[in-house]
Amino acid sequence: MSQSLSPAVSIARDLIRCPSVTPEEGGALAFLETLLKARGFTVDRPVFKDADTPDVENLFATIGSGAPHFVFAGHTDVVPAGREADWSHGPFAGEIADGILFGRGAVDMKGGIAAFAAAALSFLDKAGDAFTGTLSFLITGDEEGPAVNGTDKLLAWAAERGHRFDACIVGEPTNPDALGDAIKVGRRGSLSGVVSVEGVQGHAAYPHLADNPIPGLMRLMTALNDVVFDEGNERFQPTNLEIVTFDVGNPAFNVIPARAEARFNVRFNDSWSQETLRDRITQVLTQAAGPDLKWNISFRRDGSDSFLTRDEALIAALGKAIEAETGRTPELSTGGGTSDARFIKNYCPVVEFGLVGQTMHKVDECTPVADLDRLAAIYERFLESYFAASVQG
Amino acid sequence: MSQSLSPAVSIARDLIRCPSVTPEEGGALAFLETLLKARGFTVDRPVFKDADTPDVENLFATIGSGAPHFVFAGHTDVVPAGREADWSHGPFAGEIADGILFGRGAVDMKGGIAAFAAAALSFLDKAGDAFTGTLSFLITGDEEGPAVNGTDKLLAWAAERGHRFDACIVGEPTNPDALGDAIKVGRRGSLSGVVSVEGVQGHAAYPHLADNPIPGLMRLMTALNDVVFDEGNERFQPTNLEIVTFDVGNPAFNVIPARAEARFNVRFNDSWSQETLRDRITQVLTQAAGPDLKWNISFRRDGSDSFLTRDEALIAALGKAIEAETGRTPELSTGGGTSDARFIKNYCPVVEFGLVGQTMHKVDECTPVADLDRLAAIYERFLESYFAASVQG
Repeated sequence: MSQSLSPAVSIARDLIRCPSVTPEEGGALAFLETLLKARGFTVDRPVFKDADTPDVENLFATIGSGAPHFVFAGHTDVVPAGREADWSHGPFAGEIADGILFGRGAVDMKGGIAAFAAAALSFLDKAGDAFTGTLSFLITGDEEGPAVNGTDKLLAWAAERGHRFDACIVGEPTNPDALGDAIKVGRRGSLSGVVSVEGVQGHAAYPHLADNPIPGLMRLMTALNDVVFDEGNERFQPTNLEIVTFDVGNPAFNVIPARAEARFNVRFNDSWSQETLRDRITQVLTQAAGPDLKWNISFRRDGSDSFLTRDEALIAALGKAIEAETGRTPELSTGGGTSDARFIKNYCPVVEFGLVGQTMHKVDECTPVADLDRLAAIYERFLESYFAASVQG
Repeated sequence: MSQSLSPAVSIARDLIRCPSVTPEEGGALAFLETLLKARGFTVDRPVFKDADTPDVENLFATIGSGAPHFVFAGHTDVVPAGREADWSHGPFAGEIADGILFGRGAVDMKGGIAAFAAAALSFLDKAGDAFTGTLSFLITGDEEGPAVNGTDKLLAWAAERGHRFDACIVGEPTNPDALGDAIKVGRRGSLSGVVSVEGVQGHAAYPHLADNPIPGLMRLMTALNDVVFDEGNERFQPTNLEIVTFDVGNPAFNVIPARAEARFNVRFNDSWSQETLRDRITQVLTQAAGPDLKWNISFRRDGSDSFLTRDEALIAALGKAIEAETGRTPELSTGGGTSDARFIKNYCPVVEFGLVGQTMHKVDECTPVADLDRLAAIYERFLESYFAASVQG
């Protein structure tokens, strides 16, 4: 069987067989290290640590020393499989059935890594000694976890060692329905906060001796939920706020509680910065609270601003490669959740393109093997175009 | 020391020394049994059981067989002391300092039981063989707990054995500030319910794929909280609804939750029955929900209707005794929380009168010993008046 598999499919299957549930390395980075070292890459495996989070292994591989410097980025860690009995194929077995490769990480994003590794090796084999650019891999084991000991620190680590990137593709599954649907060229920002109201505890039969915080918090959160922040624009969806929880935790029907707390998350477009959004939210709450309510808001520190990649050459080269291989003109999307691109954009232009995301994080995560080969072909065609001036052929 | 204490103070102190935190009997009922048997009472100690609640001991004591049949009701169980180190006198020590008796239950309501026991014994001693009525005690150990294995079952137990009561005084602490402030002649009803909204879980970055239940539940609960049920009337406070909790329990800022739930409690006056109130609440919620919200309401079965004691002779006799001993004309009150009177009113006219409630359920619960003696004098004067035709003097 094995010898009949393409390089992309073979690498994806081998990566799926490494049980690298965050924060476990599971053999996945060791496998990549062996693969890339064999082709002449210099490989580092820095481990990052921080308070209150697990230590995490990362990988940085690079070949060449000239300009431009292009980097593929991604993560080998995966979310847990859940109940393995629910899977029709073992989540870490890497089985192929009827042309479909099954397993946790098949699309998010061991399949993406396999495709760009296969593309890079094929590209370098063809270019041979004529390649004068620099090609790197920035791979973390902490994307699905706290993302504290991963890409953010790996970028700083690489910068300290003199690496300056000119462009990056993250291999996350960006396509809603079919390969070629969408390139992510930006991300909305994310801001989270906690709103609380303090009342006075008391007996439900003596409300004049108590002060129920729940109606006040409902007033605040309703005001916040009703805000129309903007209508969106040609590149970004409208800014949207979701109240994600509202909690009191009072088990007694005859007790008026002392405190109520709600939490929200905003996904915001480039009409806002974290600072202007914090100001607007605080203003809305202050107005809704009136003079007597005892309330408080605290914003979480893990927010991120929106960004848009303005490197037209990068976007055009990738878009043309996609069109050539799939016949589709990819939408330039900024929707959806955050990714490690939010860290990379501080270092170089970055876009995201990978497999079809429908089965990500689900039971029976899978991808057609044909998509893996086509994605590898797209990446390789992109590399040829991007490095056209750097291959002295 | 001991021989200088009045009967009411001595009994109260001995009861406080029994650590009868619900559901523990703690020796309190055994003490009363000994005391009342010595004066010729017939005493029973039925234990009641039910699923999911502790077994609880109760006491029924009775003397005489003629009409009328008067009963004192109360409970020897007490709420926990909390941190004993916070007390200036041990919560179960029964210490007296500067004319104040300290201890858990001093006012709620071992002090009340001591006062009516002392009053009954003195009254019977004075009446002697000339007493032709019936005098009983209905004492439970399950008032502060679930109230499942207490007064409700003890009343049914007594009825099965042929006891028919003509009037009852419950010795709960009814006075806000000073002895003689208030007789409770009724209670508002109580109705509790749970409102829930079902949504669709999803990622906070993809709200169009999810359906957040929190805004819908806030809309329902705000509508419910804004209802003016009535303005009250000359006997009862206005009906009042409190939202006692609102819970989602979602720990993740990037997840839209699937479900939200809130609970409420209504204290309602005689403008409403449980049934009309359930209808009104369901109507308000239905209107606020509109056609698309997936919501549900369930009412708890432990609700109680409001009641008013209309026995003018009972109220007048007690009121006159209070005026004679304190110089105060007691307010006829229907405010505050529920008590076991909600069960007794199904058997006979019932009013509540006891000590000053300010320290009930608090650290350093206490009562002036003078109040115990005065309350005993009020009860005895009431018994003389109530049984005037039943003492063949």
